[in-house]
Amino acid sequence: MFLIQTEHGRIILSNEHLVVVGGVAAGLAAAMEARRRAPAFDITVLEKTGDVSYGACGLPYVISGLIPALERLIVHTPEYFRERHQINLQLNAEALEIFPAKSSLRVRQDGAEREIGYTNLVLATGAAAICPPLPGHDLAGVFVLRHMRQARQLLAYMHERRPEAAVIVGAGYIGLELAEAFAHRGLRTTIIEASDKVMSALDGRLRDRVVEELRAHNVEINFGERVVAFEGHGQIERVVTEQGRAVEAQIISIGVGVTANAALAANAGLELGASGAIVVDAAQRTSAANIFAAGDCCEVLHRVSGRRVWLPLGQPAVRQGWITGANAAGAQPALRYAGVVGTNAVKVFDLEVARTGLSHSEAQDAGFEAAVVEDEDYTRAGYYPGSAKILTRLIHDQRGRLLGAQMVGREGVAQRIDVYAAALHVGLTLEEINRFDLAYAPPFAPTIDPILRATKSSGQ
Amino acid sequence: MFLIQTEHGRIILSNEHLVVVGGVAAGLAAAMEARRRAPAFDITVLEKTGDVSYGACGLPYVISGLIPALERLIVHTPEYFRERHQINLQLNAEALEIFPAKSSLRVRQDGAEREIGYTNLVLATGAAAICPPLPGHDLAGVFVLRHMRQARQLLAYMHERRPEAAVIVGAGYIGLELAEAFAHRGLRTTIIEASDKVMSALDGRLRDRVVEELRAHNVEINFGERVVAFEGHGQIERVVTEQGRAVEAQIISIGVGVTANAALAANAGLELGASGAIVVDAAQRTSAANIFAAGDCCEVLHRVSGRRVWLPLGQPAVRQGWITGANAAGAQPALRYAGVVGTNAVKVFDLEVARTGLSHSEAQDAGFEAAVVEDEDYTRAGYYPGSAKILTRLIHDQRGRLLGAQMVGREGVAQRIDVYAAALHVGLTLEEINRFDLAYAPPFAPTIDPILRATKSSGQ
Repeated sequence: MFLIQTEHGRIILSNEHLVVVGGVAAGLAAAMEARRRAPAFDITVLEKTGDVSYGACGLPYVISGLIPALERLIVHTPEYFRERHQINLQLNAEALEIFPAKSSLRVRQDGAEREIGYTNLVLATGAAAICPPLPGHDLAGVFVLRHMRQARQLLAYMHERRPEAAVIVGAGYIGLELAEAFAHRGLRTTIIEASDKVMSALDGRLRDRVVEELRAHNVEINFGERVVAFEGHGQIERVVTEQGRAVEAQIISIGVGVTANAALAANAGLELGASGAIVVDAAQRTSAANIFAAGDCCEVLHRVSGRRVWLPLGQPAVRQGWITGANAAGAQPALRYAGVVGTNAVKVFDLEVARTGLSHSEAQDAGFEAAVVEDEDYTRAGYYPGSAKILTRLIHDQRGRLLGAQMVGREGVAQRIDVYAAALHVGLTLEEINRFDLAYAPPFAPTIDPILRATKSSGQ
Repeated sequence: MFLIQTEHGRIILSNEHLVVVGGVAAGLAAAMEARRRAPAFDITVLEKTGDVSYGACGLPYVISGLIPALERLIVHTPEYFRERHQINLQLNAEALEIFPAKSSLRVRQDGAEREIGYTNLVLATGAAAICPPLPGHDLAGVFVLRHMRQARQLLAYMHERRPEAAVIVGAGYIGLELAEAFAHRGLRTTIIEASDKVMSALDGRLRDRVVEELRAHNVEINFGERVVAFEGHGQIERVVTEQGRAVEAQIISIGVGVTANAALAANAGLELGASGAIVVDAAQRTSAANIFAAGDCCEVLHRVSGRRVWLPLGQPAVRQGWITGANAAGAQPALRYAGVVGTNAVKVFDLEVARTGLSHSEAQDAGFEAAVVEDEDYTRAGYYPGSAKILTRLIHDQRGRLLGAQMVGREGVAQRIDVYAAALHVGLTLEEINRFDLAYAPPFAPTIDPILRATKSSGQ
């Protein structure tokens, strides 16, 4: 039984104690939604680091200098949650072990350990960037950017050591954003990617557009090359690849992938999926009673493949957080998460790159007999100044149902992909998408928008 | 029986003669699609004016000076159709009368009249701008812009007379585009609108944003004021309103509405709708055998209201043209036009204004018990520079089904409206739209896009 003082000074007695592990996107969304629905709940949020409620996706733009300080990424201070919403927010508090049988967890904070009881538990432990255990990965100047803390260290290092050359390991979307950031800061920048793709899905002509854009801004990119060692004396001096090539650099960012922080759940006997992330149902319930999970630590329904996959992204994390918070607060009927279609966008200098649904190889892996069409068209009426090319790739099955879309262009890509995302949400064919009545005005689109033209190039 | 020489020199005998009346968007789309499917057809296009195949929507931007010459709007020359595609394109050829009983029509060209037989006829006669018969409407300097010809006259007038002040009658989308055009040319510009809306649908806060943008660029706009006379000596000098106000101007553009060019069809006994436009079925067939109609001269299925309405817009015109051309060329099964949801966008200086579906009053007129929600949100992550407000209004029925959307903002509006257009196409509820997995990246959208946020403000 807990005494809680609300904003209006009322004292409420509560038998409910919701504990949330993780204080960034999903965790705080859950805590806030639970608070909105259950003013009498005792709500505790445990955050392992000293930072909560910040836009992690903005980190590359602080590193580039576009955003002047890391603090600008903070959405709300700890006081906002504590004082305005009576959420017991604990920083530097790490959940070490869950005891489902006695509904409690062991927490370490400021060197001391204690046990906390819960009636409902939400795991929003997120994901960790993978740091391959290569020789020299612990040299000064080798970073794996994920949290505020690492960004702070990286910025301090840049300020102190003034690196002139950077190597990015991995051409995922964070790698591409960081390449832009380093180039903006005047560093000679090289990306080394083991596969032949960028953003794990783009190859062929779409990839080539991204490569051209990088090269136009003096960022080198090498495909099919694997880093085998970091070398230096105390501080990073060069990266060595499988091919024996050495690239000089005074700063390295590793972005070869992320992994779900699911050890806490696994140790408590919660079911994990083949991906290694926590298995949840549509109400975000784990396999253990009264334990929910949300965000980058758990699997999610992919609406296109119908499978539960692990696809850690910011927007789904926040939505899962809301749903989890509502359900942990006892929403009846329980809210259900509709699943994702895998939409994602990234800016690469003056290029917009976006994808939704499955790539061709993902579609094949998911058992579809998938085909690909590509189309290139312009963003505005032919006579209107400033028109730019958009290259679109659509993946569809044998009945013509859209399975995925990828787009690259200089304007209007990140919003156009959303139309395909909407079509994927309801499972439309290219033929049906082609019937959409979309906006036309010379400054914004040609008479027949590239979205529509691309659906036509399948000849269906 | 006709002899036709194809591009490759072959001689083909044809018993089919497709005649198309109208040589802009729908008419040429029909002729070209028919040619693609029926290489042996004899195809004649009759165009009343001397201009074919141009982007009429670009006229305001030639007037503004953004596009340096009218010729830049021309997509293809007459020779392209004649020589490359064996389309018998006749300029300054006006269809005067159709004789359905004997499958022929009477045509006037170069002062002479003749009769032409057809096996299939496509009417793509378009729409005409309404010129209210007010005193002085025939003064020099009073324009009703619709075709290339009028734009040519207007440009010549501006070059000769150097007007310093302009009045635009009517705040429809062409009126707004022309206001921007005149202001860009340095004219003092005033819009006079009889209703309290812009673009026939926007009122309240959304309208006010447009008004602010106009005023910030020195364009005055007055609502609820009706023009009763144009005054001057040979040349326009002032506009007089119902309220007795006189506005000095040396150039006037009237844009109070358009009307379907359906007299030719009506005189031949073809069925017209209550709108005065030609009635067609989903295959674009009129009530008369072997006569089709496409584009601004005919009615169209509105997918939201389920009614056949008259909604003359460029993109549907081109699509109807394709479908008509295919069907006139004997496509089996006949292609069917899926109908429109009424999507439209316009640039007003640095503002993007877009709408799709029904407005609140249109929804009420169509028999819906409609409700409205409004939401204001930002186009990018809060910390990312250049973020702009988007004001969104959604109209929905009592079950939460989306009926229409209107958006005003400085970026990303014309593309975002397309997501609502897609949702209207399939008839989704706000709740379902809210589940869309849309692109998120700090430079392009906040974590939860305005599209999604707006669906939430209904509280559903």
